[in-house]
Amino acid sequence: MDRSLAQFLPLYINVTMSICTYFLTVRLIPRLKERFLKANLCGIDMNKKNFVKIPEAMGVVSGCTFLITMFLFIPIPFGDHIFNNVNFPHNEFVELLAALLSICCMMLLGFADDVLDLQWRHKLMLPTIASLPLLMVYYVNFNSTVIIVPKPFRAFFSLSIDLWLFYYAYMGMLAVFCTNAINILAGVNGLEVGQSLIIATSILIFNLIELSGDMWKAHQLSMYFIIPYIAASFALWKHNRYPSKVFVGDTFCYLSGMTFAVVGIIGHFSKTTLLFFIPQILNFLYSVPQLFHFVPCPRHRLPRYDPEIDKLNPSLTVFRKNDLNILGKLIMSIFKAFKIVQWQEDSEGVVTCNNLTILNFVLILFGPLKESTLTKILLIIQIAGTMLAFVIRYPLASIFYDV
Amino acid sequence: MDRSLAQFLPLYINVTMSICTYFLTVRLIPRLKERFLKANLCGIDMNKKNFVKIPEAMGVVSGCTFLITMFLFIPIPFGDHIFNNVNFPHNEFVELLAALLSICCMMLLGFADDVLDLQWRHKLMLPTIASLPLLMVYYVNFNSTVIIVPKPFRAFFSLSIDLWLFYYAYMGMLAVFCTNAINILAGVNGLEVGQSLIIATSILIFNLIELSGDMWKAHQLSMYFIIPYIAASFALWKHNRYPSKVFVGDTFCYLSGMTFAVVGIIGHFSKTTLLFFIPQILNFLYSVPQLFHFVPCPRHRLPRYDPEIDKLNPSLTVFRKNDLNILGKLIMSIFKAFKIVQWQEDSEGVVTCNNLTILNFVLILFGPLKESTLTKILLIIQIAGTMLAFVIRYPLASIFYDV
Repeated sequence: MDRSLAQFLPLYINVTMSICTYFLTVRLIPRLKERFLKANLCGIDMNKKNFVKIPEAMGVVSGCTFLITMFLFIPIPFGDHIFNNVNFPHNEFVELLAALLSICCMMLLGFADDVLDLQWRHKLMLPTIASLPLLMVYYVNFNSTVIIVPKPFRAFFSLSIDLWLFYYAYMGMLAVFCTNAINILAGVNGLEVGQSLIIATSILIFNLIELSGDMWKAHQLSMYFIIPYIAASFALWKHNRYPSKVFVGDTFCYLSGMTFAVVGIIGHFSKTTLLFFIPQILNFLYSVPQLFHFVPCPRHRLPRYDPEIDKLNPSLTVFRKNDLNILGKLIMSIFKAFKIVQWQEDSEGVVTCNNLTILNFVLILFGPLKESTLTKILLIIQIAGTMLAFVIRYPLASIFYDV
Repeated sequence: MDRSLAQFLPLYINVTMSICTYFLTVRLIPRLKERFLKANLCGIDMNKKNFVKIPEAMGVVSGCTFLITMFLFIPIPFGDHIFNNVNFPHNEFVELLAALLSICCMMLLGFADDVLDLQWRHKLMLPTIASLPLLMVYYVNFNSTVIIVPKPFRAFFSLSIDLWLFYYAYMGMLAVFCTNAINILAGVNGLEVGQSLIIATSILIFNLIELSGDMWKAHQLSMYFIIPYIAASFALWKHNRYPSKVFVGDTFCYLSGMTFAVVGIIGHFSKTTLLFFIPQILNFLYSVPQLFHFVPCPRHRLPRYDPEIDKLNPSLTVFRKNDLNILGKLIMSIFKAFKIVQWQEDSEGVVTCNNLTILNFVLILFGPLKESTLTKILLIIQIAGTMLAFVIRYPLASIFYDV
């Protein structure tokens, strides 16, 4: 296999185009702010003293520049085949198109959500539908639904198990999880973009490592998406970081989640992708009692701003202990036992408890924090998560699998 | 070639799915109206006595149900290959995905236009970009850029000419033209959807005729898109017809134009598709002086409503004759010679002239009309255009080409 410089030429072109995308996006965003405000696409920053209107759903700008870059990039990896007009690799082309279709579709739905405020069941149903073309491509091109059983469990199962339809259900759920997991770990300036950039960079590093392996083609394909994504999102981050001049909206969270799911699926590293979501998984698990309404869940769970000290406190939810069902009581007693909730109960059985997000949990641990400090701590947790992921993926994996 | 019933099975499934889509869409639209009004996506109907707020950009609902139907339909035409797992026709699959990608992308841009009010240059640039994946597929799968020269011109040219890059430019411009041509032939209740439905039905009839020909596969592919499109749009029309309960927005016009361009390109009948746009082409040509600002062009050119008689009059634009440049004067004198403008000039050289749309032209011809009557006349013109198109396509074509 010839892995000369020429073979990586599309990658160099991709990087060059991404640099242009960055500069385009970073200039475009402030120029479009007025237009978003005029369209009433704006929100108030709740964690600031002065209630300024901030344009919302700006993720659609970085998303569009990302998509345009990808559209212009489409012919590049196939340059050889185009000029020589032989053996066009339709199967590779299909992957690229299906991935773009899923991302584009998800962006449309995200923007519709920002404008129209969709219901929860749509948020679960729509990513599933958006991922259908991709699953179809997976079926056609690979249809490998066999997983290797880790060594310690081989006594109970065989060497490998064919998950069959369940593997497709898993991939569909991956898209739903990725799109929503970023969306619920949010609420302070720059956190959505910050965490997404760290996840994207982690995927990029993983791709770079694997580029020297047997599966280099799949990882190259993943990089085609991740590099322009990082460029466009980094431009967005410049305007979204503390103090935010723009908000990114559900558009950005959906777009990001779908991009990660897509590269994970077509790059055959969906389990590794999930490893980069450790903080999101923890936040999701911690949120479960509220998400599934075992414990009352207010409309917004973001931290409570104290204007006097200009710092954030954990936000609280108040309910009667007797209103909890048996499952709610059980889960909360476990949480109390592990001391991961702030729980105050008065003589009449009225409970005051923090909203169950890791933002509030960090505030319980470290006391009132400045918003920028809270964002920094969460991004450090995200980086720590990535480091843990690499430890699991490389040294630890050799214990469970034959590498 | 076996053209048994089994071969058309995907088509039957498509029809069944489309019927479901119709019923889903027709119920979904009224239920989502409140959500659109709440998001401030609404407009005032200028041609009514009572100024009621009407939800705008509802085309996104029919567009989404259309896309969801297509997403669910994707595996169906490949059922045989999926179950037998041999010789998957990637080249056909690529066409389907690229077409969906272009349509989805255009819908995103249309919705963004409705919400954010994009500039004119975006309206020209974005359809071009959205059609790139499709042109790439055309290049890879067909790359036939040769056109047959009509008999009378063969003395000057050869039998055929290879248009090469210009053919791709033509296809890109087709997308731009189709998306915008429907958008500028608008302004009275039900016209956008009405004309689109007539064009779509014309394409469907043409596909049905050609289904018995050599190119039946391409026409079958076109029908996969057109039937669900008609179902979803017909549901929208139910609510958009006079008196409109919802407006369709640029989303619908863009989506429709792109769908027509897409089926024309992948079905290899782009010239026939253009024939179904005769009224739109006439409206565009008539509008050229205002679109290119040879004659002053107000923000809105829709007919002027007279509440006393509840009828529409042509809307007017007023300017000084001396302000026109040489080209403007030339064009307007031609228009005057053919008596296709209402032109009044006072002693000081101030001109009052109707806005150059065929809506206003019909109003000049037939006097003040009720809004519903004007819509009907325009839809009859559209049907007449289709009949003319079929005459050109079938009996007349044999004069110019060897059939």
